[in-house]
Amino acid sequence: MNETSVLHAVDAVFDREIAFLSELVKHPSVRGEEQSAQDFMARELAAGGYEVDRWEIDVNDIAGMPGFSPVIGNYDNAVNVVGTLRSRTRRGRSLILNGHIDVVPVGPLDMWKRPPFEAYIDDGWMYGRGAGDMKAGLASNLFAIEALKHLGLKPAADVFFQSVVEEECTGNGALACLQRGYRADAALIPEPFAEKIVSSQVGVLWFQIRLKGLPTHVAYAGSGANAIEAAIPLFAALHDLEKQMNAPQCRHYDFACHDHALNLNIGKIEGGDWASSVPAWCVFDVRMGLFPGQSIDELKQRIEQAIAEAAKSHAFLAQNPPEIVYNGFAAEGYSLDEDKRPVAREALDALGRAHKFVSGQELEKEAITATTDARFFGLYADTPALVYGPKAEAIHGFNERVDLESVRRITQSTALFIADWCGVEEL
Amino acid sequence: MNETSVLHAVDAVFDREIAFLSELVKHPSVRGEEQSAQDFMARELAAGGYEVDRWEIDVNDIAGMPGFSPVIGNYDNAVNVVGTLRSRTRRGRSLILNGHIDVVPVGPLDMWKRPPFEAYIDDGWMYGRGAGDMKAGLASNLFAIEALKHLGLKPAADVFFQSVVEEECTGNGALACLQRGYRADAALIPEPFAEKIVSSQVGVLWFQIRLKGLPTHVAYAGSGANAIEAAIPLFAALHDLEKQMNAPQCRHYDFACHDHALNLNIGKIEGGDWASSVPAWCVFDVRMGLFPGQSIDELKQRIEQAIAEAAKSHAFLAQNPPEIVYNGFAAEGYSLDEDKRPVAREALDALGRAHKFVSGQELEKEAITATTDARFFGLYADTPALVYGPKAEAIHGFNERVDLESVRRITQSTALFIADWCGVEEL
Repeated sequence: MNETSVLHAVDAVFDREIAFLSELVKHPSVRGEEQSAQDFMARELAAGGYEVDRWEIDVNDIAGMPGFSPVIGNYDNAVNVVGTLRSRTRRGRSLILNGHIDVVPVGPLDMWKRPPFEAYIDDGWMYGRGAGDMKAGLASNLFAIEALKHLGLKPAADVFFQSVVEEECTGNGALACLQRGYRADAALIPEPFAEKIVSSQVGVLWFQIRLKGLPTHVAYAGSGANAIEAAIPLFAALHDLEKQMNAPQCRHYDFACHDHALNLNIGKIEGGDWASSVPAWCVFDVRMGLFPGQSIDELKQRIEQAIAEAAKSHAFLAQNPPEIVYNGFAAEGYSLDEDKRPVAREALDALGRAHKFVSGQELEKEAITATTDARFFGLYADTPALVYGPKAEAIHGFNERVDLESVRRITQSTALFIADWCGVEEL
Repeated sequence: MNETSVLHAVDAVFDREIAFLSELVKHPSVRGEEQSAQDFMARELAAGGYEVDRWEIDVNDIAGMPGFSPVIGNYDNAVNVVGTLRSRTRRGRSLILNGHIDVVPVGPLDMWKRPPFEAYIDDGWMYGRGAGDMKAGLASNLFAIEALKHLGLKPAADVFFQSVVEEECTGNGALACLQRGYRADAALIPEPFAEKIVSSQVGVLWFQIRLKGLPTHVAYAGSGANAIEAAIPLFAALHDLEKQMNAPQCRHYDFACHDHALNLNIGKIEGGDWASSVPAWCVFDVRMGLFPGQSIDELKQRIEQAIAEAAKSHAFLAQNPPEIVYNGFAAEGYSLDEDKRPVAREALDALGRAHKFVSGQELEKEAITATTDARFFGLYADTPALVYGPKAEAIHGFNERVDLESVRRITQSTALFIADWCGVEEL
């Protein structure tokens, strides 16, 4: 096997890869609705000669594990799929190829140029919710292996292809894979960070603030009794905390040049029932980042303090103390860059070589301001997790899209990386 | 007939009145769900010897009429009920007894001591959504007539008992009664204003402000791109307008002593889809008051100006101009006090005498900061509309309740007023 033949093999299977990706995007796998996408995935893996493990996550199995996030709603139909490709020779190092099947909500449909699950291609981009984040990555994982097969080869070590749910709100899908016993010498997660390697990622905490008060007919509306408007000073208090946490002296070293790595987002709000009733309730959902090494519990304390402080000096809130509920992400930060063990350096070097062969460039590092499932492998299973995927735009936005030539390059680098890391054996 | 016998007659039917009110409160007649309550009403009227007219409102019939408010949702099942009690002699003045069957939403159930449609009695109060606003009024209208019947009498002029929908969001139910041809020499509406007569009422305009923008993954959240937080400067701009409109020099004479008659209420909000996506949309519903004599169109212009002005100097809003949608109330103010015609003075005097006989007190006037259906009779049908009803608490709030002894007194005054205004004839 030479490297160039691997690139050509990816070219040879690339039409099939695009067709696969297109089909995958057409499954609208928002939270709770991932089953049809997972069925498709399981079928494709079985057809490709993988042993398929498909199971429903049981919260009780994972609730006590480090990295667990409190669960929103129920887990009926929260289904993971793992395909195992066993090596006969086991000469090389084993590998987890991980990707998440869940996609974020589409938002108002009229803000999309075309329906979000159409998976149409325009000018070299495939459009659709999840096209970039991260169904292209799942496709790339699968077709890197297909390319090797096209050459009559397969990895000379066990490879575990994981298609997990819940990446976008808790990470409990990847955690359930750990609980089920899946382990390998390294993990690759092709999240769409534009062909860079993620050196560090922030943590993420989700919380909900609930305000309740005593409503009246609007005819008797006094100032300060409005639960919707009472949220405003809380927004301000939270943004103050955000500012403090982003101060230069508070940053993780890998984020030293990021002026604003930790974003606080008021992502969702709902309140009141009737234009002419003073609203008695308001609920809003917040996402806050934290640096690798920072403690979730400490962040919770700071949030609770900031909210309590703001409530004290506000007529409505002092009478009606806000309730803070944690549901969804309780995710620590993770820095691959801090993993100085040989296995981590070797994995990075192997990926760097593959990347350079495909692109002609050194592999650039990036400290990202989002979280990924990499933390589970890195923090809780001593497994270096390489986050390296294609270029995408408008992820979580409207007209989300992924650059197909970038997908091709990532598939090529991935195939080369697998051949290097795992070695190859005859099919 | 002497006055005291009328009071006793109300006492004699009062147990039945409470039973009727209790049954009526148990029908959860929120908008779109008024049918069972109206069915009950129609049955009771038919049983009481009224000719019953029950019809579905057709928006096309009323859309061109003055006082029409734009409609939220559809009008399937928007049903009015009018019972006509014809006089043989027609010696007196005819009368409309009006009340609305619709109630506002209940809000979060856990904020109610007991379920909102249980209609339980505690310490002389009947509790329940709509108990005060205004099913007690409907009961009082009906049992004032029942009390006369108890004496072997009925009104000596045609009486139209109206049970209308849509009072709480448009007033189109009362408007549809006008369109259907119902007219009388006066109207009585027992809205729960604590046994006072409403001398003037404000107008009400409802509008919705819709914000849309371009969302991104929260990892790339810049400040100012959040559609939820972009609502805050608009709240401020609207409250500025509210302040201007309440300035002493801007007040209607009957509200001269009201420091804050025109309440602007941010009553409902919704925005965003996901804690970790920068929200691309936010919608909020506003209620604003206006004085009698002020024009709806002029108020709309001022609102549009205030919103446009605020948007100009805000990064997000300048790029994503807010949309203003008018749905629901476009209600002018109404002042009975300004109606100097003899018919209005006579109606007021008759009610004043009845009130004084029952309570021993002069009838107090009140300029109210809410609207009622009185405006349709007063402004668009030259009919003096007397708004005079029982004492209630927490209307539009939790644990809404009505004072049953107050309901008794209002029923007594109403019976006396009918006997005076319409005269009586043998059953």
